[in-house]
Amino acid sequence: MAASASVASSAGWQRWLPSLPILDWGRRYNRETFTGDAVAALIVTIMLIPQSLAYALLAGLPPEVGLYASVAPLLLYALFGSSRVLAVGPVAVVSLMTAAAVGEHAAPGSAAYWPVALTLAFLSGAMLLAMGLLRLGFIANFLSHPVISGFISASGLLIAASQLKTLMGVKAEGHNFVDLLWSLANQAPQTQGLTLAVGVLTTAFLFWVRKGLKPLLTGWGLGPRLADIVTKAGPVAAIAVTTALSWRLGWHEQGMKIVGAIPQGLPPLTLPSWDLALWRELAMPALLISVVGFVESVSVGQTLAAKRRQRIEPDQELVALGASNLGASFTGGFPVTGGFARSVVNFDAGAQTPAAGVYTAFGILLATLLLTPALFYLPQATLAATIIVAVLSLVDFGILKRTWVYSKPDFAAVAATLLATLAVGVESGLLVGVGVSLALYLWRTSRPHIASVGLVPGTEHFRNVLRHAVRTSPALVSLRVDESLYFANARSLEDRVNDAVAAQPELRHLVLQCSAINDIDASALESLEAIEHRLGDAGIALHLSEVKGPVMDRLKETDFLRRLSGQVFLTHYQAVAALTPEMLGAAELAGPPTPSRPA
Amino acid sequence: MAASASVASSAGWQRWLPSLPILDWGRRYNRETFTGDAVAALIVTIMLIPQSLAYALLAGLPPEVGLYASVAPLLLYALFGSSRVLAVGPVAVVSLMTAAAVGEHAAPGSAAYWPVALTLAFLSGAMLLAMGLLRLGFIANFLSHPVISGFISASGLLIAASQLKTLMGVKAEGHNFVDLLWSLANQAPQTQGLTLAVGVLTTAFLFWVRKGLKPLLTGWGLGPRLADIVTKAGPVAAIAVTTALSWRLGWHEQGMKIVGAIPQGLPPLTLPSWDLALWRELAMPALLISVVGFVESVSVGQTLAAKRRQRIEPDQELVALGASNLGASFTGGFPVTGGFARSVVNFDAGAQTPAAGVYTAFGILLATLLLTPALFYLPQATLAATIIVAVLSLVDFGILKRTWVYSKPDFAAVAATLLATLAVGVESGLLVGVGVSLALYLWRTSRPHIASVGLVPGTEHFRNVLRHAVRTSPALVSLRVDESLYFANARSLEDRVNDAVAAQPELRHLVLQCSAINDIDASALESLEAIEHRLGDAGIALHLSEVKGPVMDRLKETDFLRRLSGQVFLTHYQAVAALTPEMLGAAELAGPPTPSRPA
Repeated sequence: MAASASVASSAGWQRWLPSLPILDWGRRYNRETFTGDAVAALIVTIMLIPQSLAYALLAGLPPEVGLYASVAPLLLYALFGSSRVLAVGPVAVVSLMTAAAVGEHAAPGSAAYWPVALTLAFLSGAMLLAMGLLRLGFIANFLSHPVISGFISASGLLIAASQLKTLMGVKAEGHNFVDLLWSLANQAPQTQGLTLAVGVLTTAFLFWVRKGLKPLLTGWGLGPRLADIVTKAGPVAAIAVTTALSWRLGWHEQGMKIVGAIPQGLPPLTLPSWDLALWRELAMPALLISVVGFVESVSVGQTLAAKRRQRIEPDQELVALGASNLGASFTGGFPVTGGFARSVVNFDAGAQTPAAGVYTAFGILLATLLLTPALFYLPQATLAATIIVAVLSLVDFGILKRTWVYSKPDFAAVAATLLATLAVGVESGLLVGVGVSLALYLWRTSRPHIASVGLVPGTEHFRNVLRHAVRTSPALVSLRVDESLYFANARSLEDRVNDAVAAQPELRHLVLQCSAINDIDASALESLEAIEHRLGDAGIALHLSEVKGPVMDRLKETDFLRRLSGQVFLTHYQAVAALTPEMLGAAELAGPPTPSRPA
Repeated sequence: MAASASVASSAGWQRWLPSLPILDWGRRYNRETFTGDAVAALIVTIMLIPQSLAYALLAGLPPEVGLYASVAPLLLYALFGSSRVLAVGPVAVVSLMTAAAVGEHAAPGSAAYWPVALTLAFLSGAMLLAMGLLRLGFIANFLSHPVISGFISASGLLIAASQLKTLMGVKAEGHNFVDLLWSLANQAPQTQGLTLAVGVLTTAFLFWVRKGLKPLLTGWGLGPRLADIVTKAGPVAAIAVTTALSWRLGWHEQGMKIVGAIPQGLPPLTLPSWDLALWRELAMPALLISVVGFVESVSVGQTLAAKRRQRIEPDQELVALGASNLGASFTGGFPVTGGFARSVVNFDAGAQTPAAGVYTAFGILLATLLLTPALFYLPQATLAATIIVAVLSLVDFGILKRTWVYSKPDFAAVAATLLATLAVGVESGLLVGVGVSLALYLWRTSRPHIASVGLVPGTEHFRNVLRHAVRTSPALVSLRVDESLYFANARSLEDRVNDAVAAQPELRHLVLQCSAINDIDASALESLEAIEHRLGDAGIALHLSEVKGPVMDRLKETDFLRRLSGQVFLTHYQAVAALTPEMLGAAELAGPPTPSRPA
């Protein structure tokens, strides 16, 4: 009781403060958890180095920025994050969105570009933090699965297309699929043979590692988990081999683009721009990046937490991701979030606590201090190949077929998001997707299923008169509304009642069966009053049946119920029994009922 | 059967054509209906003349434009309208919205002003017609009652404030309440004593006619209906008296503004502007005017139709109002819609068919040909007084109290609409209102009521464990979701399940009671799959109970149901009986249950 009392009191002002999960897991830290974390960190570091470089290039930034974005954010996430195994850092889709947003304000490669990216990370971090502190995480719920799915698939295609230019050794521009392909087609004659050969071979190798290496390794007797981890090192092998060849054979002298000089040293201290006009223009992209990053991060976090019967706090995750992005903006990074592949690797390799993220951050820090000279000769085409192989696994057109079979509105949302993202760009794609899915939801709830029901003879059940052989009476209409009543559908109930009245001249009673109505808002209440009033003018009484408790509680306070010409019945059967008892008698006397709709 | 077959076939392409209700009522026209229509038309004409002049001035247009807008639109409505008694023409709120929209593009009184108003009527007419032909009338449903109510009240205040300048004989500007009052306060020293005196006295007279005259007349032995109609002639009396005084006493020579010369003759043939840039800028105001006009018109039409057990077709009304506004744009008018007061008068005076509208149009036509010279000396302050008295009856702050008591989200929508309309203007007010009410609806449905339920001992009923003394089992959790599952609330179900799993270490079965779920969209299906997957990882089986027929039909096609670790039970009691029979046994053995939540 004492504990629960203290919980209750802490639910006051303290619930508005972010918690520090590190105080929980840090207290129980021991040698065993250290070993698990350290091994996982080593593997994740090896995986993260090429990814960081590649995603920085994808975002239009120098490769070292990717490493910078993989230090402070990881430390801050370890401090605030509620997931034990989430690995944050640069990810493909967010990097693409960064490129699209920053590209509006500065040319990639120009001196003005990086500060805009820092500002984007700052705004995104501030928004995530604010959403977390204000408990606004539910905003992310308005990105539906079909929209996310269509968006991720389209982004995967966009990213792959954007990397083709590096694979071909040409320049190409465009933030949508059509522009990109058109630009590539124009540039095709300038294709660099050597770059293309290295790029294509690396891509083929990486695909083989994904699909063919694991069976081979398990065939050789390796455990499946170890085999899995070895295959994740494929990109590192590709980088090592192509860098060595590039150095020995002097590929850069033959026109191949290499990574070149990466500044050695700690991540720099940086500041975002304080230009409010820039903030205003970056606000929408920052919001979209925040929401997409949060959704991606939370879904992988939840999936992994559930495997160990742990759970994550979405609002706490907002705080942690906010802190990570603020950290990125002050240490030379760009927008980051929790990545799917690396978190799974972290989990599989045995990470026990967020300390694994701290060790990973130190691993990356070592790389920025020591490893960067070794990456001088790394061909950019190798990085492009690792990106292409990684993002093509995101592309899933199966969602189109699945939603087509299951739900046409969801199919429409996927298709609209996919097309808008490919045809216009990432931001428009997301906004179109959210708009279409909300509009379709509202449209669906605005036309509720309202069934005219009749009595199934010999029972107390009522069923749709159009589907079942049921008893009705010319003096009574029973309508069952299969939706909560609110402003968008209140008038369609009025229409339906008007129709019923106009169709049945002998009508004396109209009963609304309210069993599926979870709420009645003020508009619907006024519609009910209007219905009651109009029915009264026509000499018809309005009755209700099977009203839910909470709905009844609120109706009791209203004039509507006080003035109601009819009654409120506990069950629909009681209503019919009281109002048109002849209907029950007839049903008992009648033989087998004739179907109400002759075939 | 033959009749229903022809109905079914006409439901094909013919339902895309507007119908001509005149073919129905025209066929049965006779002397009796003619008498009713003619009497009603006479009374409505007398009422409509001052209103038309006044609302044209309110819209910033010359007074005769109000008369022009009361001819062709009435004829076209009579041809297409489905209401027998709706009287269309200029109305207060639409005139205010016209002034706000046109004022953005031309100065009131300038030569450029009228063509913009014609274009607005044209666009609004085209939109209404398109919405009618495409069966898009449901769009109007997204204006909730609270939003309309707040908007109409705020508009009433705005209109009254805008007329104060005419009452005071000064110039004042502003499309929102604050600007208007500020401007009036600044102009107060220039107030014209005579104008103010006439205005205030007329206003007082008209208020007395509304409140005090009817009891007096019935006291003198007049029938209540006749007394009602006589009181509606109050504005005409005020106009006659003040015009006569103004003429005899030469008020205009003492600086009072009079209506002045009104061109005599038929409504002119006019064309809207074909400037696409102007169209683009007028598109949003035209849409808002269309929707507001449609909502106002349909609600009065439905109320009056119901009194005679008739009904109106909302989509047909869209066509009719569209035609009326197109007619207005080609005959020198401005946006019109069905008016509340004049339709009630038309109904009460005994109008039987839309032919009454035709006769009213001819009455107005006669007025434009013959009456206009008699209105030369009519003080503008008299017209302002008629407007003020008419619109203050629209102001209803009671809605604030009613929604506060009944539903806080609805209160928020009313308050936001009221404040935004007063503080910013009519368009912003409406858009804010729609935005707020949709956001609150989505917010509410995004946090569904999910109750953990337990067995009421000795019954087969399950109730919320927080509210009732019920039996539960550490091995089983029963969750009842009181909302359809869709993308915005799917994740909150995931959260709730995660909480339940984390709280009960001995959990083996989780049963979702689906009795209130009317739909499961693709996002919610994926959430269910994720839940199933995570529960599976934790060794917990997911079961469903009481799934509705249509929902089950769609689930049957999915992998989710094929792979479901648990079962689907017809009733929740069957689920508990099969999964944790010890719970039922314990209930039977136990004494009176201890409340699950000690007080």
